[in-house]
Amino acid sequence: MDNINKQLAEYARMIEEALPGYLPRCPDPESLVAEAMRYSLLGGGKRIRGALLLAFYRLFSEDVRPALPYAAAVEMMHASSLIHDDLPCMDDDDMRRGKPSCHIAHGEATALLAGDALIILAFETMSDARYAGAFPCGRALEAVRCLAASTGCNGMIGGQIIDLNQEGKPTPAPLLERMYARKTGALIAVSARIGCILGGAGDAAIEAAVSYSAKIGLAFQIIDDILDITGDQSKLGKPIGSDRENGKTTYASIHGVEASRRQVEQLNAQAKMDLAAMEKDTSFLAGLADLLAGRQY
Amino acid sequence: MDNINKQLAEYARMIEEALPGYLPRCPDPESLVAEAMRYSLLGGGKRIRGALLLAFYRLFSEDVRPALPYAAAVEMMHASSLIHDDLPCMDDDDMRRGKPSCHIAHGEATALLAGDALIILAFETMSDARYAGAFPCGRALEAVRCLAASTGCNGMIGGQIIDLNQEGKPTPAPLLERMYARKTGALIAVSARIGCILGGAGDAAIEAAVSYSAKIGLAFQIIDDILDITGDQSKLGKPIGSDRENGKTTYASIHGVEASRRQVEQLNAQAKMDLAAMEKDTSFLAGLADLLAGRQY
Repeated sequence: MDNINKQLAEYARMIEEALPGYLPRCPDPESLVAEAMRYSLLGGGKRIRGALLLAFYRLFSEDVRPALPYAAAVEMMHASSLIHDDLPCMDDDDMRRGKPSCHIAHGEATALLAGDALIILAFETMSDARYAGAFPCGRALEAVRCLAASTGCNGMIGGQIIDLNQEGKPTPAPLLERMYARKTGALIAVSARIGCILGGAGDAAIEAAVSYSAKIGLAFQIIDDILDITGDQSKLGKPIGSDRENGKTTYASIHGVEASRRQVEQLNAQAKMDLAAMEKDTSFLAGLADLLAGRQY
Repeated sequence: MDNINKQLAEYARMIEEALPGYLPRCPDPESLVAEAMRYSLLGGGKRIRGALLLAFYRLFSEDVRPALPYAAAVEMMHASSLIHDDLPCMDDDDMRRGKPSCHIAHGEATALLAGDALIILAFETMSDARYAGAFPCGRALEAVRCLAASTGCNGMIGGQIIDLNQEGKPTPAPLLERMYARKTGALIAVSARIGCILGGAGDAAIEAAVSYSAKIGLAFQIIDDILDITGDQSKLGKPIGSDRENGKTTYASIHGVEASRRQVEQLNAQAKMDLAAMEKDTSFLAGLADLLAGRQY
């Protein structure tokens, strides 16, 4: 696992270093929005989405640097969703990653606009000829389309509305799985997809990559659910039992902890089978699946 | 003017008819967001931005239909900005185009997500191979980049934050002009730009188109300011004097009504000179400038 952790940290470092270069420079008072974007985009998170994009791209090309703007774009989209999710009219969360959430630090209107601007910046970065020029044009355009298709009503935003709409009422298992697949799974899966598209992968490889990442994304969610029941508050850095307290249906509350653990194992095994079908050196990605599935639960 | 009005209405009709086809189909409860998108996107507005895009495209290609998805995209971006502008943390407006604003009709969280989803849908539509395939790939990608560049921090969203930040305090003339140029001018100008890009225009023609539309956009704003002082409430369908009441600096409050009228005339003349430099049949666009500048003020 040490090698996996090291490689993951290396991808995260590359992304973290590249991100500031994509942020807009603007005069006052437009800089208020740019500052709020910077606040939420930089200095936090494991950069799993961007790292997945780079790792899949690397299956097709040794030098991952041309794919960095696209890894940055999926991180921008992720940061935007967190800013808007934390707003008072949504989850109304005052804290995020151990610091005040964007609207607490920068005000509600500025946070709203910063979230909008991060969505827009993701697309601007992906279509910028300085970056897109490294690829055949059709790949860059398809990357744009895929990111959009996976984050709208039938993707990430769809997942957010399911989550909001189910507040305070029990959620049937199929709807819960769709919520997981859309709210967090879609952006994780499209990160893998874009890495493959940029690398020039064929359809079969793309489908395997998407299947792998959808599975590790779902496993990650289920582990979160389990940890909310069995976890160690001091290690998690957040209160235990909050799902139950909030009357929230989770995978673990429907199926129980034991069956949920088995499901994580099964998803992990299936994800690694997806990788094997790609017939590439996918050892990092297999290790990443184990790493994510192996979180203390 | 009758011909101009007729052609403008024809462009608006084409856009209005095409829009529903781009809206997402989704299951419940994701359809809540799709419904809010539909509510704000359809059945309203003069479609000036989309019409400009089509009219500029037509200078280079007789059949405007391939450009319709791009005209739809700028209208989606416009609709998104109206939804987010009306939210309680922004302008807190309950009414829009004579009906309850999106967050009043659909709730605040859904309106927030619908605005996000409309931004994303604009980019999805522009990059969809079914539509982008009608053009050389580089043109579609450049259209994506231009829309993004003109709507972020250094464009539309920049204008929104200037507006919010100046609330209740006097605005210096240069900042007011930048606010106008960004908040509404940028999307109008990029509509013209995208029409030209899709048509395969050269740099000089693109610059002339952008200059023309920036000028008619600014003239439009200044007329709004004048009408708020001199207008007829019954014709305008909104209260007169609201800018003054709200302590809002406007072009007319800085320069006076007479100088503002002269400025409109001058912008209109300059816009038509920009067109003349294009050496194309720009009679509709010249007539449109006159039509917009000739609103009763």
